[in-house]
Amino acid sequence: MIEIDFNKGDGLVPCVVQDIENGQVLMLGYMNEESLQETLRSGLATYWSRSRQELWKKGETSGHYQHVKEILVDCDDDTILLKVVQDGAACHTGHRTCFYRTLEGEEVK
Amino acid sequence: MIEIDFNKGDGLVPCVVQDIENGQVLMLGYMNEESLQETLRSGLATYWSRSRQELWKKGETSGHYQHVKEILVDCDDDTILLKVVQDGAACHTGHRTCFYRTLEGEEVK
Repeated sequence: MIEIDFNKGDGLVPCVVQDIENGQVLMLGYMNEESLQETLRSGLATYWSRSRQELWKKGETSGHYQHVKEILVDCDDDTILLKVVQDGAACHTGHRTCFYRTLEGEEVK
Repeated sequence: MIEIDFNKGDGLVPCVVQDIENGQVLMLGYMNEESLQETLRSGLATYWSRSRQELWKKGETSGHYQHVKEILVDCDDDTILLKVVQDGAACHTGHRTCFYRTLEGEEVK
């Protein structure tokens, strides 16, 4: 088991979320140790909400759960990549992915 | 042009890097405003190195440049997704992607 380095970012590491079915990058969340443990326990992606300062099981309100199929760790042990099966939409705007706009502000498919 | 919110993370935003050709997530870097401007100017992914505290044009030493084809911004304006053509390997270990291990420590293809 790789020991994640939670020390660089106030106990949080960024977590890239990718749709395992089509490779689309869906969102970026943050995890602390507790949220990683809960993700492992439940099989459902669970983050640390920086705005609410609480554990956040994605989909608990919306029903848009993320079923975790693979957990990868980067070479520095300080970033996580989740490959998930996404129920519904990842973005609170209703878009499938949070990355639905170019830097120029144009909406992409 | 979307105004990136650099305020949440000490002037830095995380930047997910994806291979535009096969969808592979290659790495996560950090950008400040200066590195984003340099990325736009040069067309080559340029980050802020947190360890060296300096601008870091990826590939300047290794030759493994990242040619930026698309820049996307998430719904909160605080995360960037770069789609790139990657020269050589993204990871300093020589792996194509920095995410070459599972949480259990097994190497993946």
